[in-house]
Amino acid sequence: MSIAQNTESTAKLRCIACGATPDSASQDFRCTACGDLLEFFFPGWTLDPLLSDPASLKALWLNRRTSSNALDQSGVWRFRELLPRIPNLEEHVITLREGNTPLYRLPRCARATGVENLHAKHQGMNPTASFKDTGMTFAASSAHQSGFRWVACASTGNTSASMAAYAARGNMHSLVLIPDGKISWGKLSQSLDYGALTCQLRTDFDGCVQILNDLVRQKPVYLLNSVNPYRIEGQKTAAIELMEQLAWEPPDHIIVPGGNLGNSSAIGKALVEMRELKLISRLPRLSIIQAHGANPFYRSVRELGGKKLEPKKLEPMTADTLATAIRIGNPASWKKALRVLQATGGEVEEVSEIEIATAKAEIGADGIGCEPASAVTLAGLKKLRRSGFVKPAEAVVLILTGHALKDPDFTIKFHRGELFADRAVAGTPDATEAAQAKYLQRAPVVLDANLGAVIAALDAAERNS
Amino acid sequence: MSIAQNTESTAKLRCIACGATPDSASQDFRCTACGDLLEFFFPGWTLDPLLSDPASLKALWLNRRTSSNALDQSGVWRFRELLPRIPNLEEHVITLREGNTPLYRLPRCARATGVENLHAKHQGMNPTASFKDTGMTFAASSAHQSGFRWVACASTGNTSASMAAYAARGNMHSLVLIPDGKISWGKLSQSLDYGALTCQLRTDFDGCVQILNDLVRQKPVYLLNSVNPYRIEGQKTAAIELMEQLAWEPPDHIIVPGGNLGNSSAIGKALVEMRELKLISRLPRLSIIQAHGANPFYRSVRELGGKKLEPKKLEPMTADTLATAIRIGNPASWKKALRVLQATGGEVEEVSEIEIATAKAEIGADGIGCEPASAVTLAGLKKLRRSGFVKPAEAVVLILTGHALKDPDFTIKFHRGELFADRAVAGTPDATEAAQAKYLQRAPVVLDANLGAVIAALDAAERNS
Repeated sequence: MSIAQNTESTAKLRCIACGATPDSASQDFRCTACGDLLEFFFPGWTLDPLLSDPASLKALWLNRRTSSNALDQSGVWRFRELLPRIPNLEEHVITLREGNTPLYRLPRCARATGVENLHAKHQGMNPTASFKDTGMTFAASSAHQSGFRWVACASTGNTSASMAAYAARGNMHSLVLIPDGKISWGKLSQSLDYGALTCQLRTDFDGCVQILNDLVRQKPVYLLNSVNPYRIEGQKTAAIELMEQLAWEPPDHIIVPGGNLGNSSAIGKALVEMRELKLISRLPRLSIIQAHGANPFYRSVRELGGKKLEPKKLEPMTADTLATAIRIGNPASWKKALRVLQATGGEVEEVSEIEIATAKAEIGADGIGCEPASAVTLAGLKKLRRSGFVKPAEAVVLILTGHALKDPDFTIKFHRGELFADRAVAGTPDATEAAQAKYLQRAPVVLDANLGAVIAALDAAERNS
Repeated sequence: MSIAQNTESTAKLRCIACGATPDSASQDFRCTACGDLLEFFFPGWTLDPLLSDPASLKALWLNRRTSSNALDQSGVWRFRELLPRIPNLEEHVITLREGNTPLYRLPRCARATGVENLHAKHQGMNPTASFKDTGMTFAASSAHQSGFRWVACASTGNTSASMAAYAARGNMHSLVLIPDGKISWGKLSQSLDYGALTCQLRTDFDGCVQILNDLVRQKPVYLLNSVNPYRIEGQKTAAIELMEQLAWEPPDHIIVPGGNLGNSSAIGKALVEMRELKLISRLPRLSIIQAHGANPFYRSVRELGGKKLEPKKLEPMTADTLATAIRIGNPASWKKALRVLQATGGEVEEVSEIEIATAKAEIGADGIGCEPASAVTLAGLKKLRRSGFVKPAEAVVLILTGHALKDPDFTIKFHRGELFADRAVAGTPDATEAAQAKYLQRAPVVLDANLGAVIAALDAAERNS
């Protein structure tokens, strides 16, 4: 069973490796010629009068902000001119009013890093609290348009939560495959809430992916893992929305967490396409930050010149990185991400666990909560500043990918001094205690119930601040 | 130390009981004459040319949606004409781009309740994932304008999370007082993230409130509990935004969870004020739903004719209700809420624990996640339908107050059949198992890692759906 391109317009599928341009995708979204990933491209853009007129496009998108139409209210569909067109769109679109995420100044983090013009684009403010929603609305709508009743993914985290929500919203069923063993029920609470069918398989994560690929070839089940190129298209809109928020004046630098590398690919793709359409006049650098404990892309670029990627085996119970959302040993989209680095002149960096934890607390001190994986951006910026790759006068935007409530345990343990108690976490330097000390001054205290005790605590905190 | 009204405009403070109109509030926000709550009123509204022109006001607010100004981008400050004016607003406003929350159709819940025109206004899509942010931006900005460096509240949940975020954002310190004992660290993770000073006092919740009141009278600390009338003003904007989303055509019915009753008061106040200003032509009924396990307001209205309220003693470890966000024994704003019921012709209802849990799962099946307290609205609607108070043809809007991620444990336990395992929860009928059975069909299953097993699970789910 194959999936039509779903496009009436000029969008076409293309293999990123062999360049084949199939008329339709197989259900595993792999090139039938060489097995690599597919992507959309738009050969006919220059023939479209609207797309050749940046000022009109910008005005159209701005104007839609006052519309009461559901498509216009979505931060993804508002920019639908830059997405492959879905036939009978209005009948099939599944939206939770995703996108529309805030761009925050980070004044304290700016002072701490010495980069005065520092913002965060918070994709954790999406409906299911992660950036996955922007891609999911587009891919799930495409599944609906193709007549699928079931969608599926292998994931224990943000992807399954997002998929289950959009499936429920679109009256489709969803299937989540996860490895058996000690899994995080907290991460699965959302998919259960939205009614997903959850199967724990007696195998590892790769085994789940393999069975899922077999499944979609035999049964009418739509694959929603990140190899799905529709997801990448939806995720592009975060960059378009960001440029609009910056009055179409690109920053010097955009910094993205690197896990499976689909998000870096999507944001980079949008930047290149926006410059092609003259919506922006120059490309910002896009840099990618990985956790040291899950750094196959970092090693590929730094040690192997990006010529190949050696997967890192991540065992379920190993404490390689606590930034679980980017704990990926074999990133599917690494070739797409590499192309983005090359196109924009960006850098790849890795950060340690204590650097992630303190960066998260620094973002929190600016009143912004994020999940640990998001905080690698600030930690990475500090390293890029130290190496001189980012200059103090540059305008920098961090992409935060998930909400703080995605991982409350991490936060609690850090602020109680328990996060690195066993020191088994990879990449944790001996200076852990020193880095944490400032935060432990604000660890919860137990006091007698009298006014004097509270005033004393208040005065002490005031002195330490 | 007293707090100026912070208003250059026609807003005035008034005691809801004795009618005194003080020029300033004491730091505990209680009437110095009789000790009851204060509220804002607007005697000069009719003299303001803009406020007498509903069409112009609506156009102004709509237009601000295309603005890049931070005030205009906030779903609270966009409606600032209906709020008390803060001097030098631009210098003091603390905003996280709160409000702007989606209004969702609930198609499956509509069929289940027999109310075709059913929507949910999801206030859990605010930055800290609860409705508290809309009131907090206004009250925290007011504290900042008054020069406070410290803000404080007694809370273990959504209020402290919101307060800590806005305090951090505004470069103020925040203090959270909570009772010592077995508390939920998950709920506190956000305040720790934002750097709040957290004191566990060897007393109960009322003891914390008492010490906090003493504290604010002695030290320059700004009280951010819900008795603060600025918070109520900010929360009004949810109703204004809702009416705009409905093209200023009020629904027949709005249903709100009832805990401390500040939110019901705020939404009701906004409705009355919007009718006064001819922004809407009639008042929707506003009904309030409590959990049976924490139902002092229900009992006051139903059994005592609303003449008084008998507080319900709630022990820390008693399983009276799992809807912790409305687990309030002595609701501060009950008189304000009573006035709203009377003004709008609304009803008060109570629901059981299993009714809350199944309603939450039904909302989830529509692709919308919410915390348990929010689900009392749907559970209450069902009862109001059965009693005939709500008719099938009526347009109904449920106010959802918190995001699903505020309480993932509840969701997991429900879908694994563990939530009512000990049956100690008040109000749980014997029919619990029957009500849950449908959801337990989708409880996670462990399977061998082969395609056949997964296909069998898929087929079984398909048959049961």
